[in-house]
Amino acid sequence: MIKPVDVNAAALLELQSIEDGRGILVVAEAERHVSFPIRRVFAMTGVGSGGKKGGHAHKELNQVLVCLSGAVDVRLDDGRATRTERLDTPARALYIPPLIWADQQYEDERTVLMVLCDEYYEEADYLRDYDAFLRFRAGI
Amino acid sequence: MIKPVDVNAAALLELQSIEDGRGILVVAEAERHVSFPIRRVFAMTGVGSGGKKGGHAHKELNQVLVCLSGAVDVRLDDGRATRTERLDTPARALYIPPLIWADQQYEDERTVLMVLCDEYYEEADYLRDYDAFLRFRAGI
Repeated sequence: MIKPVDVNAAALLELQSIEDGRGILVVAEAERHVSFPIRRVFAMTGVGSGGKKGGHAHKELNQVLVCLSGAVDVRLDDGRATRTERLDTPARALYIPPLIWADQQYEDERTVLMVLCDEYYEEADYLRDYDAFLRFRAGI
Repeated sequence: MIKPVDVNAAALLELQSIEDGRGILVVAEAERHVSFPIRRVFAMTGVGSGGKKGGHAHKELNQVLVCLSGAVDVRLDDGRATRTERLDTPARALYIPPLIWADQQYEDERTVLMVLCDEYYEEADYLRDYDAFLRFRAGI
């Protein structure tokens, strides 16, 4: 099992971002701008104002969240402390390590969140029950 | 040099898309949903209404374009024939092979285009001059 980290192990990343008056380009290269190989990319959009997503942790998955449009408040929880980060520009991404419980609140339906992951989808990697998450972190 | 293909070698891909009334989730896994390893991801947003981007070809790069919000008209050109595809849903992505000239016209500033690439950025891979593109395709 991966050693549980605390909520401060989540880290804001400055991605390469080029704004030229004709739009904003944001770039993430695997094993360079993000520390891992990119095996899965997903994106969420159309979530209504104040809508929540997430509400789970991962046993092993590493993720980087990039808000491409609008804004997302990401709440992180290690079972003892919580921390909230607002992502409202593509240039400021958020790395979330394994064994951190996270949920996201979307500003409005135009908000677009892109997530880069170091592994393929695997349901067994998800901890969807908060008490089970706490027990898993405690090694129980 | 990679053998030049014609414009019909560009292909629409149906990505996995889950719409649950609380938003749309779209997923792309490397070497599964897209045929290649994902080494670089970039996204464009904030391009004004009718704004154009692109206007180049690649010598070797493979790309998949995914429009996450709004709409993009992608014009493809192999030096003989052209073809235009409209991307207006995240579920319908567009694979663009090397040696196809492409430009994109954005519907409005809210439009978000995500691009998955099989290689890191390398300026020497770009063909930014149309006549040079034609000569390169012809092996001159």
